[in-house]
Amino acid sequence: MNLDLLIKNVDIITMDDQNSVIHNGFIGVSDRKICFAGEKLPENTGFKKEIDGKGGLAMPGLVNAHSHSAMTLMRNYADDIALESWLFDNIFPIEAKLTDRDVYWGTMLGIAEMLKSGVTAFADMYMFMDEVARAVTETGIKANLCKSPVQFFEGGELKRLDKSQGTVDYYNRYHNSAEGRIKVFVEIHSTYMFNEQTLRNAALLARQLNTGIHIHLLETTAEVESSKKDYGMTSIEICEKTGVLDVPVLAAHCVHMTDSDLEIMRRKGCSIAHNPSSNLKLGSGIARVPEMIGMGINVCLGTDGAASNNNLNMFEEINLAALLHKGVAMNPQLMKADTVLKMGTYNGARAIGFDDTGKISEGMKADIILIDTDKPHFYPKNNPLSTAVYSAQASDVDTVIIDGNIIMQNRVFTGIDEEKIKYEVHSLSKRLLVR
Amino acid sequence: MNLDLLIKNVDIITMDDQNSVIHNGFIGVSDRKICFAGEKLPENTGFKKEIDGKGGLAMPGLVNAHSHSAMTLMRNYADDIALESWLFDNIFPIEAKLTDRDVYWGTMLGIAEMLKSGVTAFADMYMFMDEVARAVTETGIKANLCKSPVQFFEGGELKRLDKSQGTVDYYNRYHNSAEGRIKVFVEIHSTYMFNEQTLRNAALLARQLNTGIHIHLLETTAEVESSKKDYGMTSIEICEKTGVLDVPVLAAHCVHMTDSDLEIMRRKGCSIAHNPSSNLKLGSGIARVPEMIGMGINVCLGTDGAASNNNLNMFEEINLAALLHKGVAMNPQLMKADTVLKMGTYNGARAIGFDDTGKISEGMKADIILIDTDKPHFYPKNNPLSTAVYSAQASDVDTVIIDGNIIMQNRVFTGIDEEKIKYEVHSLSKRLLVR
Repeated sequence: MNLDLLIKNVDIITMDDQNSVIHNGFIGVSDRKICFAGEKLPENTGFKKEIDGKGGLAMPGLVNAHSHSAMTLMRNYADDIALESWLFDNIFPIEAKLTDRDVYWGTMLGIAEMLKSGVTAFADMYMFMDEVARAVTETGIKANLCKSPVQFFEGGELKRLDKSQGTVDYYNRYHNSAEGRIKVFVEIHSTYMFNEQTLRNAALLARQLNTGIHIHLLETTAEVESSKKDYGMTSIEICEKTGVLDVPVLAAHCVHMTDSDLEIMRRKGCSIAHNPSSNLKLGSGIARVPEMIGMGINVCLGTDGAASNNNLNMFEEINLAALLHKGVAMNPQLMKADTVLKMGTYNGARAIGFDDTGKISEGMKADIILIDTDKPHFYPKNNPLSTAVYSAQASDVDTVIIDGNIIMQNRVFTGIDEEKIKYEVHSLSKRLLVR
Repeated sequence: MNLDLLIKNVDIITMDDQNSVIHNGFIGVSDRKICFAGEKLPENTGFKKEIDGKGGLAMPGLVNAHSHSAMTLMRNYADDIALESWLFDNIFPIEAKLTDRDVYWGTMLGIAEMLKSGVTAFADMYMFMDEVARAVTETGIKANLCKSPVQFFEGGELKRLDKSQGTVDYYNRYHNSAEGRIKVFVEIHSTYMFNEQTLRNAALLARQLNTGIHIHLLETTAEVESSKKDYGMTSIEICEKTGVLDVPVLAAHCVHMTDSDLEIMRRKGCSIAHNPSSNLKLGSGIARVPEMIGMGINVCLGTDGAASNNNLNMFEEINLAALLHKGVAMNPQLMKADTVLKMGTYNGARAIGFDDTGKISEGMKADIILIDTDKPHFYPKNNPLSTAVYSAQASDVDTVIIDGNIIMQNRVFTGIDEEKIKYEVHSLSKRLLVR
């Protein structure tokens, strides 16, 4: 067998159906895919390139299933204030100034940060989405991008214009582009920014394109109230009624769900992106995640934007998801390490439209991260699953491989100019972040 | 002015009474103390050594106000199980095997990990406390160590013997030793491991020694019940009755407090060490921290032991404390960045008996950490307080200075053999961690 890449001397967190761990194993990569992962190197194996994992961990790349990457531009700009003031007095005024160039560099910064913390795929929802597609294409990461058929503003005024055509174009240009590294969903920002007719139109559009929908659902109690007022039913119910849930749905937040809402989501096979840092930081509340998992709903994890987090660090979300719900329910046996790692890897991959990644097993795409465990906080070396969830930091990610390509090695990017990204963001922030 | 050390080119989070931030400033260190911190370098300033902060952040060293450092030896060994099984089936059997040498190396590992994450002082409660004092003395860190007058086990049997003399000896040998870097408190493990008489004896001993008490209080609902059964009152009430609260008290956890308990703690001027990761992970519950702070109680932060965390990463505790209580109370204006940073620095220093550290201001001991912010997750550069709480990781700590001595620079220890620590812990874990 002739490999493109051989990884050796690693404990492998496979995230396969048994969540099995391979001790001191080998991973073979050929033609962008994993062709074996095991304790023994198959006989007569040749390879073009070899990486020594130095006794560390290999695991599937993390999937950040809900983000607004370019909001890195507003990082640490407005914190510890009421949600309305945060949004209307701080975030919106800056977003009104954003150009396509700003969004490009903000997204590049977000991607650089995510790659450095082990993220190999993410779902993004923002404006100037052509620029986001460009950043994804250039950097080698994978992404689910979405485009809204409803334009909210025209001439600075809230209009909510139905412009489905732009979404069709976007889908045709980018879906499965970048060697299959981009998937395109239809964006429904939320039920409160749409109305019954535009919800119906967006759902129909997604069905026609044979793709999914990325939506914010029930993040706050304010949304619970507005949905009752506007639609006479919950956000989930109006989504079901208008056909939104008849396609693959990636629903961010889902903090304030009734039992019936949860049952609808389960029945419709929706995925829920849990964003613990953002939900806590904005005071939105705590989602009923253990119940969702118990019902068999596909729950994944996201960082949300860096303006409400304030980073894109999936290791923090994994750790927080594992800890938070144990404490709230006063039950240390909830949200076990393997469950939470699955949320941060394969569940996320499925949710954002890449079902051929998120596991280290034969035939899956070679999206792999290596963790350097030769540091005090990893000693003595015990259970790899616990280690990844409870001890690891994002900065412990040493190497990132996507579709078999080495994107980062020894924490240095192979093809991304990190210095230029930092320089450009620093420069444009001088214009944007003037109070 | 002739300095031992000049730090330049840093934004300084002072944690002074106004929580002021100095932009692009200088810090002068002379005779182990901070002699100035400001935007301008005083005229005619000479220095023996200079550190360029490279546009990063300087802040007071973090204070880990509750830990059992040597429990690093049980890191990632037993997770996601019920508290009783965790303790009785996993932790106690290993602790029964621990030798003084094990505790020394476990503590050395814990100290190495803490230093690497910006901790300059910690409070520790464990066994073989002479070995803990030795590790503190050798490494240059500061610590509050405690010694129990009650020995729980003799010949493997629970005896609860009152052996105050050992505590007096320990106090005399170590209090203010290591050039003042060690303080000694009396240990009261908990009200459930003591009885009314031994609580009284311990309180009297602390008063006679003119020192404080380090105690676990109301970590679990089981303790609430046992106190009601054993004493007919809450743990706080029996502590007040027996004089435990008449000396400076460092009380870890305090998760399940009645209004009256909180009022007693406030009136007695007790400090509370909040351990959010451990309380969540063990399913203990969520302490009423915003209320404690609102009442004026001195609340600080701790990691607890690495067996229930599973690291000694104070940046995680700071981040978690800031996020958790906003989410629980659904109020994003609680636990603001400056409040939480104060908990992790000066409040902790006061609580563990070092009131001359925890701020970067003239006359305070030079316990300073530098954070390297030239990384994607710090761009663009905005509010330094938000940055430290919401964006920073432990691994961003670049330099650690304690009493003016450079303990770590560019993430490399100046006088600690990290490789030997990792080697020794790896070796002894083979004997200890056999199931």
